[in-house]
Amino acid sequence: MKSFEKNIRKVEPYVPGEQPQKKVIKLNTNENPYPPAPGVERALKSMDMDRMRLYPDPTAGELVKALASYYHVDEDQVFVGVGSDDVLSMCFLTFFNSEKPIFFPDITYSFYKVWADLYRIPYECCPVDDNFRIVKEDYYRENGGVIFPNPNAPTGLYMELHDVEDIIARNQDVIVIIDEAYIDFAGKSALELIDKYENLIVVQTFSKARSMAGMRIGYAISNPLLIKYLNDAKYSFNSYTMNQAAIVAGVEAVKDRKYFEEGVCKIIKTRDWAKKELERIGFSCLDSRANFIFAAHPEYEAKELFELLKSKGIYVRYWGSDRIEQYMRITVGTKEEMEALISLLEGRML
Amino acid sequence: MKSFEKNIRKVEPYVPGEQPQKKVIKLNTNENPYPPAPGVERALKSMDMDRMRLYPDPTAGELVKALASYYHVDEDQVFVGVGSDDVLSMCFLTFFNSEKPIFFPDITYSFYKVWADLYRIPYECCPVDDNFRIVKEDYYRENGGVIFPNPNAPTGLYMELHDVEDIIARNQDVIVIIDEAYIDFAGKSALELIDKYENLIVVQTFSKARSMAGMRIGYAISNPLLIKYLNDAKYSFNSYTMNQAAIVAGVEAVKDRKYFEEGVCKIIKTRDWAKKELERIGFSCLDSRANFIFAAHPEYEAKELFELLKSKGIYVRYWGSDRIEQYMRITVGTKEEMEALISLLEGRML
Repeated sequence: MKSFEKNIRKVEPYVPGEQPQKKVIKLNTNENPYPPAPGVERALKSMDMDRMRLYPDPTAGELVKALASYYHVDEDQVFVGVGSDDVLSMCFLTFFNSEKPIFFPDITYSFYKVWADLYRIPYECCPVDDNFRIVKEDYYRENGGVIFPNPNAPTGLYMELHDVEDIIARNQDVIVIIDEAYIDFAGKSALELIDKYENLIVVQTFSKARSMAGMRIGYAISNPLLIKYLNDAKYSFNSYTMNQAAIVAGVEAVKDRKYFEEGVCKIIKTRDWAKKELERIGFSCLDSRANFIFAAHPEYEAKELFELLKSKGIYVRYWGSDRIEQYMRITVGTKEEMEALISLLEGRML
Repeated sequence: MKSFEKNIRKVEPYVPGEQPQKKVIKLNTNENPYPPAPGVERALKSMDMDRMRLYPDPTAGELVKALASYYHVDEDQVFVGVGSDDVLSMCFLTFFNSEKPIFFPDITYSFYKVWADLYRIPYECCPVDDNFRIVKEDYYRENGGVIFPNPNAPTGLYMELHDVEDIIARNQDVIVIIDEAYIDFAGKSALELIDKYENLIVVQTFSKARSMAGMRIGYAISNPLLIKYLNDAKYSFNSYTMNQAAIVAGVEAVKDRKYFEEGVCKIIKTRDWAKKELERIGFSCLDSRANFIFAAHPEYEAKELFELLKSKGIYVRYWGSDRIEQYMRITVGTKEEMEALISLLEGRML
């Protein structure tokens, strides 16, 4: 080891996700099977090249304005970032500075632990119950902050808004972040509680329902005070994060409410159909309200099915980790993609 | 104060830079007056919208490949990020974990202090001499790492490569980062020392010589070991940072060597002409090797000149801070823009 290596940050080695080059059916990262709103293409094609040589607007003002208008909030209630990962990471850094542990579920988005470690935030994982449901009472104890996704990942289970509200209401001395990456496929958003609770932040993304994973746009909506704290933190150490292409493309994606709603409907319809089909061939599926299905088969190892699908060019997600070793997470693709998946699985089960 | 506010990170409040809406001459943020290479526009106009719905390649492989080919290094020697601010911040986080202070100049890029504070890295500022030159011997003492820009900002002074090499050679137990945002306008890059010193990282950007501040692209070049540490850190907590538009646009900007070199020549020519003109009307200018000129007038307050220019729609940068209160930093624009600036200043001096 070189002497300078002793001061290098040690992290869990990471292997980038599979990026198959050949033509495959990609149901492994919860991307949307449909392209973004047509306005996005028009916006990118008519980008002013002279604008490119200039730094982007550090406030991403046009995008903030479009989001504020869409969600009927004020512009000072919106914070944008490079994907919801960037927004969530910034929230951890800004709001979770207590000595008490923050709380999040044991089965949940894996990056919460990573950011807590990165910023040296103590945390405690609250186990979901045997049906993979978040137990709201676990979050009533003293803590340094709360975060969970709704619907939760990778289960897809949605917590009714009155239960979400109970958690927010019982934690008014700390910040509660509801990570709503998949909310558009689910039910009521906690956004309607923003004016009622000063400790609430709702985070959403353009990567799922808005078909724009490739552009890296996420946002937080809250009250002006918390948004100001977020912006102060962000501006203080990286002023220019959203590039010009993301800003102009994002604005157009937000504007097209009709395209967005139709796309979401199509995915929900395919999800509900695919879930029934999976159950027909023996799978047990959680009640997913996201754009993926979390499914296990009582007679076949998830690992084996995962490998079989992969060998045939259908990629789904499998972790094999504690409590979920029998589950695969299957992104909802087009009807044709789901038919191919089900037909292949059914063939194995005959 | 709400009770949750006690755990919110306190930072220096930040006011975003002036973004004048009316038509002005913008010489305040070191942007390039010329548009990016023509291929950039073509690449954005022909972007595959189906690619947009998918997560970008987390390795930004095409861009890494283009940079490796341009600089004649291997692909595992290149790290890319969302502007060089992102790359530098990631370097601080990854490499500066010693208990000993890192060293950088007192007059330099203001974000070094910010990242050191953010990551709780001890630091010590080494004063530049009375001619604003970095004193290389100051960096020969024991430290936790070294970073400085070459040319330095906001002075524009270039340190000859043999002096840079002395600092690298005398610090082989720690990481030395040379921040070369402006190197293309200057002289020899430390890139030629990459194979000779295992402790060296060179960071560059697309925002200046490549006219792409709006796309947020920066990169580090080093040996495969240090690049692996950087990638491990980055992937471990945010896998997808470079969006698809930045990747395709970046590739085209790198490919067009001729356009790049011609653009740099034009700016150097305008800089050297403008510097002589400023001297003709009484300014004393440092020997700038960047795309800006750091200038003071013995008889006029910099603040007054800054305000005068601003009132006439010409924006330059003025800090008024310790040691540089008499200086303005003037970005090199087009010849016409510089003529307008000089003519206005000359009018005041008659």
